[in-house]
Amino acid sequence: MSMTGADLLLQSLYGMGVEACFANPGTSEMQLVTAIDRIDGMRSVLALFEGVATGAADGYARIAGKPAATLLHLGPGVGNGWANLHNARRAGVPLINLIGDHAVDHLALDAPLTSDLDGVAGSVSHNLIRAETAEGLGEAAARAYASAMTPPGQITSLVLPADLAWAELEGATIAPMPPLPKPAAVEDSAIDQAVDALKAGGRRVILVGSPVTGDEGKLKKLGLIAAATGAEIIADTFVTKTARGAGRAGIAKLQYFAELALDQLNGTAQMIVLGTKAPVSFFAYPNVSSYLVPDGCAVTQLARPEQDVDAAIEGLLSGLGIDPNAAAPVAERVVPDAPEGQLDAVKCWQSIARPMPDNAILSEEAATSSFGAEAFLPTAAPFDHLQLTGGSIGQGLPVAVGAAVAGPDRKTICAHGDGGAMYTIQSLWTMARENLDVVTVIFANRSYAILNVELGRVGAGNPGRKALDMLDIGRPDMDFTQIAKGMGVDAAKATTGEEFEDLMKAACNRRGPFLIEAVI
Amino acid sequence: MSMTGADLLLQSLYGMGVEACFANPGTSEMQLVTAIDRIDGMRSVLALFEGVATGAADGYARIAGKPAATLLHLGPGVGNGWANLHNARRAGVPLINLIGDHAVDHLALDAPLTSDLDGVAGSVSHNLIRAETAEGLGEAAARAYASAMTPPGQITSLVLPADLAWAELEGATIAPMPPLPKPAAVEDSAIDQAVDALKAGGRRVILVGSPVTGDEGKLKKLGLIAAATGAEIIADTFVTKTARGAGRAGIAKLQYFAELALDQLNGTAQMIVLGTKAPVSFFAYPNVSSYLVPDGCAVTQLARPEQDVDAAIEGLLSGLGIDPNAAAPVAERVVPDAPEGQLDAVKCWQSIARPMPDNAILSEEAATSSFGAEAFLPTAAPFDHLQLTGGSIGQGLPVAVGAAVAGPDRKTICAHGDGGAMYTIQSLWTMARENLDVVTVIFANRSYAILNVELGRVGAGNPGRKALDMLDIGRPDMDFTQIAKGMGVDAAKATTGEEFEDLMKAACNRRGPFLIEAVI
Repeated sequence: MSMTGADLLLQSLYGMGVEACFANPGTSEMQLVTAIDRIDGMRSVLALFEGVATGAADGYARIAGKPAATLLHLGPGVGNGWANLHNARRAGVPLINLIGDHAVDHLALDAPLTSDLDGVAGSVSHNLIRAETAEGLGEAAARAYASAMTPPGQITSLVLPADLAWAELEGATIAPMPPLPKPAAVEDSAIDQAVDALKAGGRRVILVGSPVTGDEGKLKKLGLIAAATGAEIIADTFVTKTARGAGRAGIAKLQYFAELALDQLNGTAQMIVLGTKAPVSFFAYPNVSSYLVPDGCAVTQLARPEQDVDAAIEGLLSGLGIDPNAAAPVAERVVPDAPEGQLDAVKCWQSIARPMPDNAILSEEAATSSFGAEAFLPTAAPFDHLQLTGGSIGQGLPVAVGAAVAGPDRKTICAHGDGGAMYTIQSLWTMARENLDVVTVIFANRSYAILNVELGRVGAGNPGRKALDMLDIGRPDMDFTQIAKGMGVDAAKATTGEEFEDLMKAACNRRGPFLIEAVI
Repeated sequence: MSMTGADLLLQSLYGMGVEACFANPGTSEMQLVTAIDRIDGMRSVLALFEGVATGAADGYARIAGKPAATLLHLGPGVGNGWANLHNARRAGVPLINLIGDHAVDHLALDAPLTSDLDGVAGSVSHNLIRAETAEGLGEAAARAYASAMTPPGQITSLVLPADLAWAELEGATIAPMPPLPKPAAVEDSAIDQAVDALKAGGRRVILVGSPVTGDEGKLKKLGLIAAATGAEIIADTFVTKTARGAGRAGIAKLQYFAELALDQLNGTAQMIVLGTKAPVSFFAYPNVSSYLVPDGCAVTQLARPEQDVDAAIEGLLSGLGIDPNAAAPVAERVVPDAPEGQLDAVKCWQSIARPMPDNAILSEEAATSSFGAEAFLPTAAPFDHLQLTGGSIGQGLPVAVGAAVAGPDRKTICAHGDGGAMYTIQSLWTMARENLDVVTVIFANRSYAILNVELGRVGAGNPGRKALDMLDIGRPDMDFTQIAKGMGVDAAKATTGEEFEDLMKAACNRRGPFLIEAVI
């Protein structure tokens, strides 16, 4: 059977389970486009900007638990997708970038689109694989898949020169699924040390990261440990996925601002670190510690993110003599009152927590506007909470796109700040084209509000008008309903709790994309 | 006098002539924001996305002839600005990226926003300077300025850890203007060889690049050489700036597609290369040459882009015995008829060439929709033509922003394809905020039309629906008038020549931003 190099690559990946490709192709990727076309089961989703494609692949992986591919055009395509690859890298998700490059002979000519492709892709990838021969593209697919699936999940970039993609191959065979790396073992001594720490006196905190928080089962077991020992379970501020809501074990989140996080952890005598590392602040501030472990607190590194967190939890249960099948304390469902009067961010969350259906997906990137969410989310209907893992704004909308592709039977809610939304606003068009079941809420405060807080905290002096203008995204105010409609997504504005509630309820009762501009 | 490190850096740059900063700051750049605030003469322009900031700095440099600064937030900020930095690098413009980084002690903690900043910035910069001390920030500014101004212009990235920006300095003095590198000398032997080539028989072509095309004076001298010798002057397909229109020496452009460029150059016996390199195609295609010099054509490299093209032209005039003060043949003004009937891209250009005022700036990124422009642009009112230099789409709107900031008394027209426009559509908001005098024309063909051409050319096989969907940006059609209004820019749609003409005329007779969606 005759196939092209692109066919060999894509069919091999498809055989391993790669079923979705988020694409913004150019001339050097035309062979990949037609190769996808020839695979019935592979879904190809067009993004109008590569940052949408990479963020969507991240969101897809968070829900599907396996990698999607992206299709990126040369160095600039990687550049455009870089920020959300950074976020995906911090999320620890599996992801495979297929990056078209110039044909090998053409590269030497330094054509206008030639750039330091390996440099830009390598700077955000765990692994960069440059395909060397067309015949080797099946093996390259297997290496890329195994790399992506290396725990907890890795960003893998496969660079494909155009002449390899268009080469005709006779008798090529699709590569089989490669052996996949297992999580690294947890040392027995670490488990023993953690058990001792949990048995010690004083305040004890188990700090957990993304490899733990997304799994309802793990959280319930941690809930048993907390109930038995009096230890508290606190999650990293922003994690890849958290299984939350009624019927699930509750979990606290570490505060964002360093001072508040230090307060929150104050008096902790023992910190057990599971699937993450000891906490540090997002930014440094003059005269504030960046390292958030209180003075005198002992730290036990139980498992790093790439280690076997399941075994670590089982080890704790066993060492503490806790029955893993006991009933864990779980959150009750609480339906808040409907919000009334002039809208603010807290009222939006109060309303979102009402009609949000069971098993929804919440892609949330709302900075200051999410500060009120914690009053309502722990007791909402059970849902998966996806957060901004790498701090680079403009991730929430693309993640919602990918999550909705991976979970077509689930409602996706995207709650987003206005400043960050403008980074990857092109996501709305993909929601419309694919008719994704996403309700987007834009918190329109017309400000990089978090920066107004930070401005004072870093001691940058008394700001004048010109400085404040750099933090203010009003003047002119953006009209997100017009922007959304311009991209084919129906939308409406809310200025009161009542209006928001009506729109939210209606949006949850229909299928397909809808945007609510919450004027706050 | 007491100042911060950020003050020392910014005031030094301002003293050298850096008067504009295109910014999207984050927490690590707050000190830079307030330092700019304290400099009355420095203009700070907020972009909602870093690709707008970097493209605007490029457009600013094309018109102002000196660097603007950008303000970028950590690695992700550079990533978002990378593609337009690639274009700016290919444009050979001076540009200074000011990149905030985490405080030095904080970097070691691997906080969420930590990334391979030097890797991503280095992969698109001619020079990467990492500031080491607060006291040295004046000297760092001088190094960055001299680097940016190295002919023909360089992308220079200055990484500034936050703790250096916030350091208080006593008795620091602003760095003086450094000595600036001169263009490298042209070898006498190259001039002699070029003179001989121009005196030889057969078809002779002088291929010129960006360091030549933007200067009306140089083009007139080349026009004299063409008239005296019978040689043809042809410019690279896409150059940084071309001085065009009535009263200026005409210049042909090299065709985009390799086959057409090979036809255009067919029969050339002598090619003299001035301020560029021998021509190559954008992409490789199976069985088509990427190198566009015809077989048997002699190539004389007269001057590379970083060399002294003025001296090279003077050398030719002197060697050929041509009076440099003679009257050069120039283009006449031709006013096309007003377009009528159903709109197409050619009719748009026919109309644009009518009311476009003297000394306008045209930022053009329209791929297939610009193919008809050459029938009208050479005889329009005199204007500067800015093009997509690096092939990475999404440059035209940001370049228009920067050009309009640099040329506040000139009309800027931005003629843009719809696919590329969506990459950096956030530019419209900056046009509104700064009330920039920009008329934007969007060629709305609802397609990556150039890819539909390329799909066949690369022999990617018979495309199915799924492949064609990847090249089609209709379904849903975008409504650019709604998108523009949503960002504060007034806009209207044209579907006929008459409607377009009315809108174009009105837009040229008012000040401030306006967008015309040309439905073609």
